[in-house]
Amino acid sequence: MQRKGCKRPLKSPRRRRASATDGTGMSRTDGERPTGQVQTVELSRSQVDFPGETYSVSVLKVGYCLPQTDGTFRADGTVTLITGPRTVLVDTGGAWDRDFLLASLRERGLEPADVELVVGTHGHSDHIGNLGLFPTAVTIVGHDVSRGDTYRPNGLAGGHAYVVDEHISVVPSPGHTGQDVSVQVRGTSAGTVLVAGDLFECCSDEGSWQHLSMNTAVQEVSRQEALRTADVIIPGHGLPFRVLRN
Amino acid sequence: MQRKGCKRPLKSPRRRRASATDGTGMSRTDGERPTGQVQTVELSRSQVDFPGETYSVSVLKVGYCLPQTDGTFRADGTVTLITGPRTVLVDTGGAWDRDFLLASLRERGLEPADVELVVGTHGHSDHIGNLGLFPTAVTIVGHDVSRGDTYRPNGLAGGHAYVVDEHISVVPSPGHTGQDVSVQVRGTSAGTVLVAGDLFECCSDEGSWQHLSMNTAVQEVSRQEALRTADVIIPGHGLPFRVLRN
Repeated sequence: MQRKGCKRPLKSPRRRRASATDGTGMSRTDGERPTGQVQTVELSRSQVDFPGETYSVSVLKVGYCLPQTDGTFRADGTVTLITGPRTVLVDTGGAWDRDFLLASLRERGLEPADVELVVGTHGHSDHIGNLGLFPTAVTIVGHDVSRGDTYRPNGLAGGHAYVVDEHISVVPSPGHTGQDVSVQVRGTSAGTVLVAGDLFECCSDEGSWQHLSMNTAVQEVSRQEALRTADVIIPGHGLPFRVLRN
Repeated sequence: MQRKGCKRPLKSPRRRRASATDGTGMSRTDGERPTGQVQTVELSRSQVDFPGETYSVSVLKVGYCLPQTDGTFRADGTVTLITGPRTVLVDTGGAWDRDFLLASLRERGLEPADVELVVGTHGHSDHIGNLGLFPTAVTIVGHDVSRGDTYRPNGLAGGHAYVVDEHISVVPSPGHTGQDVSVQVRGTSAGTVLVAGDLFECCSDEGSWQHLSMNTAVQEVSRQEALRTADVIIPGHGLPFRVLRN
């Protein structure tokens, strides 16, 4: 796929609406950065692994969304594996591609039972189709944190991050649905990687993400926060992209 | 469990907000009924099968939501099977109870491949945990209709029912999330059965459903519409209940 670059205006965090800001929760642990233009650069199909001393992030499947001539869409969500002290899977793809997911884990020496935390960034069928492979994992889908049938109170709905450890946080990033979350991995060799679900469709999604959003104003705030804090963003239906700031 | 009865005010459909009404889509094929008080009567654990000449509806698992002393909740969603000319599963429960679901289907002579349509009433983990058992079924989760990775445009997001046939419709019933759907089965011996997901938590949920709702005003409209049109409601976390109107 062609490498694409696009400039996005990065709004001042101080101009964000307070209510929507509370919904993102992504700024709590990051310092203020200067405002200005931000450039996003799509990476190539060979640039889907982001090693790190503590945690490494690997895209197992690059999501896609392809309109067909008969009016349908062929689509699947990005599937991402985080390995290190904990093994975390972010999104599980659609139910039809269970065998691909199993094979991808096995290629990395993993069985489903080795995955300790499974995160569904939101409850759409192309992202949570294979939750059933991980019956014993801690599971986060949207704002719900559970293990087995035990659901644990948490602060996601209130805009607070669910901190896995000092490197990994699950952060609210609402807009595409009302309960989206993203997974923020700090300290990789590429900097902070944000596994963002459908907060971003792909690198160059200006003009398309809005049609899929339940609340474009809230999602815009979440997107700006992501662009302010992440060095690499892994979107829900496209290749990872770098975020370059002035 | 004790049988419980409660009276609910049934508002006039004409008083509903236009925007919210458009989101429910449940009135399009049903005639107007007189307004007045409506009474809901919870059925017993032995009253979970609703036979019909064309379609029969069976609750495979009665959902629950039980607060624990340590602040957690134990919860699972109701799982319902519709059999007849087509085999339809409504909600799949949590990932941890895959074997129960497989065994329940087998008790009825069914393998997962026999299920033609799987409906996730909404994308919460206690309702869509086992979608992966049905990779070849037509799948509806919220507003998305798909088979494999092919997503088909439909009217659910616009408030229109997805008509399976003259007896079964998937109808928008938003509020608990922004994209909830319910499954309406007409012509059973108990009348019209509505498999409602978390539109209703249980029969006597006044004072509790609001805390779990993303939009109580919209959900209230969806609930009133359900109470106006259904004879039996199968809620997301409790026993089925009858709807008795004056």
